Amino acid sequence: MSQQKGTVVLAYSGGLDTSCILVWLKEQGYDVIAYMANIGQDEDFGEARKKALALGAKKVFIEDMRKEFVEGFIWPAVQANAIYEDRYLLGTSLARPCIARHQVEIAKKEGAEYVSHGATGKGNDQIRFELTCYALHPKIKIIAPWRMPEFYNRFRGRSDLMEYAKKHGIPVPTTPKNPWSMDENLMHISYEGGILENPKNHAPSGLYVKTKDPTESPNTPDVLEIEFKKGVPIQVTNLKDGSSHHSSLELFLYLNEIAGKHGVGRIDIVENRYIGMKSRGIYETPAGTILYHAHLDIEAFTMDREVRKIKHSLALRFSEQVYNGFWYSPECEFVRSCIENSQKMVQGKVRVSVLKGQVYVLGREAPHSLYNEELVSMDVQGDYEPSDASGFIRINSLRLKEYHRLQSKVKE
Amino acid sequence: MSQQKGTVVLAYSGGLDTSCILVWLKEQGYDVIAYMANIGQDEDFGEARKKALALGAKKVFIEDMRKEFVEGFIWPAVQANAIYEDRYLLGTSLARPCIARHQVEIAKKEGAEYVSHGATGKGNDQIRFELTCYALHPKIKIIAPWRMPEFYNRFRGRSDLMEYAKKHGIPVPTTPKNPWSMDENLMHISYEGGILENPKNHAPSGLYVKTKDPTESPNTPDVLEIEFKKGVPIQVTNLKDGSSHHSSLELFLYLNEIAGKHGVGRIDIVENRYIGMKSRGIYETPAGTILYHAHLDIEAFTMDREVRKIKHSLALRFSEQVYNGFWYSPECEFVRSCIENSQKMVQGKVRVSVLKGQVYVLGREAPHSLYNEELVSMDVQGDYEPSDASGFIRINSLRLKEYHRLQSKVKE
Amino acid sequence: MSQQKGTVVLAYSGGLDTSCILVWLKEQGYDVIAYMANIGQDEDFGEARKKALALGAKKVFIEDMRKEFVEGFIWPAVQANAIYEDRYLLGTSLARPCIARHQVEIAKKEGAEYVSHGATGKGNDQIRFELTCYALHPKIKIIAPWRMPEFYNRFRGRSDLMEYAKKHGIPVPTTPKNPWSMDENLMHISYEGGILENPKNHAPSGLYVKTKDPTESPNTPDVLEIEFKKGVPIQVTNLKDGSSHHSSLELFLYLNEIAGKHGVGRIDIVENRYIGMKSRGIYETPAGTILYHAHLDIEAFTMDREVRKIKHSLALRFSEQVYNGFWYSPECEFVRSCIENSQKMVQGKVRVSVLKGQVYVLGREAPHSLYNEELVSMDVQGDYEPSDASGFIRINSLRLKEYHRLQSKVKE
Amino acid sequence: MSQQKGTVVLAYSGGLDTSCILVWLKEQGYDVIAYMANIGQDEDFGEARKKALALGAKKVFIEDMRKEFVEGFIWPAVQANAIYEDRYLLGTSLARPCIARHQVEIAKKEGAEYVSHGATGKGNDQIRFELTCYALHPKIKIIAPWRMPEFYNRFRGRSDLMEYAKKHGIPVPTTPKNPWSMDENLMHISYEGGILENPKNHAPSGLYVKTKDPTESPNTPDVLEIEFKKGVPIQVTNLKDGSSHHSSLELFLYLNEIAGKHGVGRIDIVENRYIGMKSRGIYETPAGTILYHAHLDIEAFTMDREVRKIKHSLALRFSEQVYNGFWYSPECEFVRSCIENSQKMVQGKVRVSVLKGQVYVLGREAPHSLYNEELVSMDVQGDYEPSDASGFIRINSLRLKEYHRLQSKVKE
Repeated sequence: MSQQKGTVVLAYSGGLDTSCILVWLKEQGYDVIAYMANIGQDEDFGEARKKALALGAKKVFIEDMRKEFVEGFIWPAVQANAIYEDRYLLGTSLARPCIARHQVEIAKKEGAEYVSHGATGKGNDQIRFELTCYALHPKIKIIAPWRMPEFYNRFRGRSDLMEYAKKHGIPVPTTPKNPWSMDENLMHISYEGGILENPKNHAPSGLYVKTKDPTESPNTPDVLEIEFKKGVPIQVTNLKDGSSHHSSLELFLYLNEIAGKHGVGRIDIVENRYIGMKSRGIYETPAGTILYHAHLDIEAFTMDREVRKIKHSLALRFSEQVYNGFWYSPECEFVRSCIENSQKMVQGKVRVSVLKGQVYVLGREAPHSLYNEELVSMDVQGDYEPSDASGFIRINSLRLKEYHRLQSKVKE
Repeated sequence: MSQQKGTVVLAYSGGLDTSCILVWLKEQGYDVIAYMANIGQDEDFGEARKKALALGAKKVFIEDMRKEFVEGFIWPAVQANAIYEDRYLLGTSLARPCIARHQVEIAKKEGAEYVSHGATGKGNDQIRFELTCYALHPKIKIIAPWRMPEFYNRFRGRSDLMEYAKKHGIPVPTTPKNPWSMDENLMHISYEGGILENPKNHAPSGLYVKTKDPTESPNTPDVLEIEFKKGVPIQVTNLKDGSSHHSSLELFLYLNEIAGKHGVGRIDIVENRYIGMKSRGIYETPAGTILYHAHLDIEAFTMDREVRKIKHSLALRFSEQVYNGFWYSPECEFVRSCIENSQKMVQGKVRVSVLKGQVYVLGREAPHSLYNEELVSMDVQGDYEPSDASGFIRINSLRLKEYHRLQSKVKE
Repeated sequence: MSQQKGTVVLAYSGGLDTSCILVWLKEQGYDVIAYMANIGQDEDFGEARKKALALGAKKVFIEDMRKEFVEGFIWPAVQANAIYEDRYLLGTSLARPCIARHQVEIAKKEGAEYVSHGATGKGNDQIRFELTCYALHPKIKIIAPWRMPEFYNRFRGRSDLMEYAKKHGIPVPTTPKNPWSMDENLMHISYEGGILENPKNHAPSGLYVKTKDPTESPNTPDVLEIEFKKGVPIQVTNLKDGSSHHSSLELFLYLNEIAGKHGVGRIDIVENRYIGMKSRGIYETPAGTILYHAHLDIEAFTMDREVRKIKHSLALRFSEQVYNGFWYSPECEFVRSCIENSQKMVQGKVRVSVLKGQVYVLGREAPHSLYNEELVSMDVQGDYEPSDASGFIRINSLRLKEYHRLQSKVKE
Repeated sequence: MSQQKGTVVLAYSGGLDTSCILVWLKEQGYDVIAYMANIGQDEDFGEARKKALALGAKKVFIEDMRKEFVEGFIWPAVQANAIYEDRYLLGTSLARPCIARHQVEIAKKEGAEYVSHGATGKGNDQIRFELTCYALHPKIKIIAPWRMPEFYNRFRGRSDLMEYAKKHGIPVPTTPKNPWSMDENLMHISYEGGILENPKNHAPSGLYVKTKDPTESPNTPDVLEIEFKKGVPIQVTNLKDGSSHHSSLELFLYLNEIAGKHGVGRIDIVENRYIGMKSRGIYETPAGTILYHAHLDIEAFTMDREVRKIKHSLALRFSEQVYNGFWYSPECEFVRSCIENSQKMVQGKVRVSVLKGQVYVLGREAPHSLYNEELVSMDVQGDYEPSDASGFIRINSLRLKEYHRLQSKVKE
């Protein structure tokens, strides 16, 4: 074993990769603190703690950050209608800064000079992790084994890891690995790699974990009433059984349950990584999909057209910042504060029907909306003078007439 | 009857409103040419011709512009992924300039000084009609009865129209009118007004015409392979039965059929009219919805990330221009040419599953894509040096570290 | 005289036009309250008051709103680096909402149902005035004589006004009118109309009022140090004589004096009016021009690159909103609050040299800037690892290489 | 000497740095081809050739690419009104891809596997060089000595280079180096580093090379008429002496001469490098500054308002792409083609007065402009109905009134 190099806080998942990394780091001469974020993934944290200690971790920190994840990261994304490249609801991207923030806090508290993670060298997650770390703790040093030749040349495939594991007493998985990799949290699961790397291949049936296959989901909808205040859901009521959910985490879990039951939130896309390559990802985001639709609706109902347009352009930037790993950046702070500012009056109730993979908005109401039923009515004139529209249209046509004049002259 | 005032080309629908307008215009002293655009709506054009002539139209023009509508208007919207306020696929907005263009052409050919339409004074359609007319024929005069006090004060409701119709031998509808108004074309049907004006009211079952209720649609999907070239669909194959459709109109009609059968394309939204009021609209856009998803996918697969981003910002403007009635404007011409330019390499095949109101992308392939399976692979290093990412991340963190430095100094 | 129609608050300038309007409004049966805003124009307000009363105004309100204009309108524009179509610093646009706000406040206080102004029917100012009035007092009725056929057909030219004036005892100007029209306030003077309508005509020498002809201005510069806090100037020191100015109005007047002395702030442009026509305007904005350059500089020095970019896009919208008359709109409120938010750390001192129509930035300093002299130094390595740049560049080249690969394949 | 490693094409400037690099590369075992781009800098190319050969270059290529630089790089920037962060006209940024393109062409032709340059590891130029190389020749390998520890640790300062030069027979400069570094081409000179790194320091008198000090420049202007076609200058006429210049290069050189004589084009800014740090740069861009103002003017005169706005947003992206080194990228190709498309009708003549560091636009004319003198006239009604503006304003006020209604309700 090499000499003592210092202490590293490792983002530990309990799986084969980070277990090998834990042992490898010790082998390199580091003291290792294992850090696990409970961000809603399906995991036996007690077992994982034992495993980490057995592998030689000096300490193990397991933190339940599900509530913080919902309120501090998912809610701002809901307010923004955040979506990357028109389709991806950013489930993984939102989790990373939440996880990494705690990791550097532990590093600070424990006086560790290093942090480490098991993200690959081609992906977005390495960037999201590390930019968060550098932004919050500029002096931190990062060990990314999958980018280090001495590591990746030694572990060229899963069999190398298995062999290493056996040699070092790391428990190896007994069930065969899926021919793809997945990442789970409260908001979503992503599937990529392996057989999914061929973008033509269909997702195998049985891949999806969080949502039911729509052909097998119920053929009667659940109808939910979702209440928003300041752009954030504060209550969800199932109109079928009258059940109601209020607190952020509980409400989000309930939406996951209903959406999952109806197969809502599956997408299969090719996206552009920050690093510049196209990748194919399959995602399921059950609750997030319902909230995306419901928030779009209440926002459209209560927000001025022009404010909405400007807010939309900010949300485009926000989505890209989050995807690229810049949650903790001056620009993302700025944009978040602007978006939050836009949500003051985004308040009211939206009713949605959830069925067979779809979310249908049925109606909406708000205590203070900009919708004026009398003004818009086809049957009532209201406070509106139709002849004003003639002037409006003619003034708008001035430019077009001038352009026509010019075009005619040019053609002559 | 007043004295001869000249000739007016009236956009005639065959319905009660424009029949009354036809007679009323004659009453005011105009010669009336009735013009009907076959834009894919469900209508007996032969009957309508007879009716118009019976009511005193000097001439009747009925033009089949379905192919032109698909190729000249819907295809550019597909290329753009055009969507207004994140949800509306612009079915009505795209039809208006197509219709109005022919109307002014008839006016020019027939030497008519006037055009007229039956659009209301609060809506978007009046603007879309008239801006097209002014842009293409600046000297045209427009008669918009629903904005003229002498007309709208006389016809304060449907009963006034019915009474007028009876008095002037205009055939009156025998079936009771739906308590909402609707507008149909090849691409979509919109429903608004009446009981839908209360944004809280759910759409009554039985409202939808083009799409089947998802609870009653088949529980087995149709799987389609849609082939694009230059961003435009050139072939649709149903993988279940092997049937294939090529020509623009035929292919579009087939997609309408499949999407309609599976209940695809329903939305219920509150939107912002150009005129500044919020309105509630319910739309069904069957084929358009499939194409929206399929084109998004093939574009993401074949277009560079940064080009995509810029093209997306142009498409936002395009959607707004189209919604507001500015199809024939210098800015829309400019944006269309830029978007078309972006589609040169958008070529390939997308497979989608259509089921219960949903369109699922299953996979895609392209002769020339920017997707590089080896480069992105988790298992192969390919032409990629992982350690480069370390430099990339550290350089990207420079700004964040400086910001942290500044924030720390300020807090001191 | 017609019967009593109610009370109108007239934006009165003291000149021939609004004097005629005052009398004409009385003739139409209105009680007229004359309202004059002291917004920094060169005017004898005492004389104007006498004149208005002599012409029959029921009351005269003269309000000094120079300080409010500077702090409430010019400062937000400085923070935004507001500029319309790359050149116009919005001097008139900013003054209108300030003036109109007080006008409707008087109308409310005095129970007047009407407001009136002398703006033409082709310009921007009518819109800026009226949108402000409608936004702040939706029930207000507006009398715009220059858009009323009974008025503009009666007064077809200046000679008609002169004749009317003579007939009704309105004092007529004794000096011949300039063959252009001008509008002045604290921030700028605009010149347009008359001989300037031919865009090829050069501005006649002698046109400019606020600034010295650069060929006649001093050939030695004044060097100023301008200190900003939260993006707003808080002190100006002349380094030549050591004189210093602090309060907003005083400081702004001093910058006007120095800039005027050196011929700073003249532009001659063709711009696009909101109403859709192109117009030619000549402007001089002395203090505003210095502040534009100085603020740009201190902002670039203290604001993060990406925040700056986003703020810049908001400022583009702000400039357009202000130009078009939407100061009091939900979108402008929103954008102003975002921009203000961006200015928290925009603090420091900029030195500028003012000479012969030019403003040269000489240097800048800030208590907390994002500029890191050591980091950027060519001679010191600082906390920077040059080899990181290799990774940064190679990762950035990935997309470019893929594109090259694709292009080569296509050409084959 | 180490063993033979292959051939490298070195961007050779003739100065101390790249001379040392040339020798050092040979020392490392490379064959070196020296490549000099004549891009308009002040240089004795014959002497430089001799020097390179004397130092051991296997071949020397000197290429005059001044015309290509003007037509292929500066003209697109003029069309775009390209400007980075509101102030920098991109003189260096535009030259880099032009230079690097030829460098990789030589590498291809000569079968060299490597290219090399003398750019520092903290700057933008390394990126602009290398992204061009990778984009046009993905397999190329780049040697950037200033990012290689074995080089930069050996040459820690100028004295190390001097010593190395003496030892290896490299001629050393006899005049003392300016305490800053500079980079020159046809379009501009940049000054940075050394004493300029303190952003508070004023530029020393005597720094500027291309432009005369405005206090010493003539006090009588030159008046130029600049004619544009498709957004590009095709003729410059001096109205004082009637002299006229047509061809791209000749015309550009003449504008440099006139602008330089009058001290036009100096700026002192802090900018944001792509690499994430703020740097201070002083630039002089004489001809470019005149063309920027003239093109802005003719464009505003001939281009529709909304097209201009969209084109402006594209130009912002273009400027950033160019600054960051992405000239040869799919996105920059796309944006250039869109911008070029927008310039079809940008045609006409602008008159400018050049005096004491300033460019004043005096007037403009165009064969086909969108400016309609009659329409905009204050004295003629033209084809304009003033009362239309009432409707236009009232419709525009609808949203504002609704917002006021909402705000009032909330406050209750």
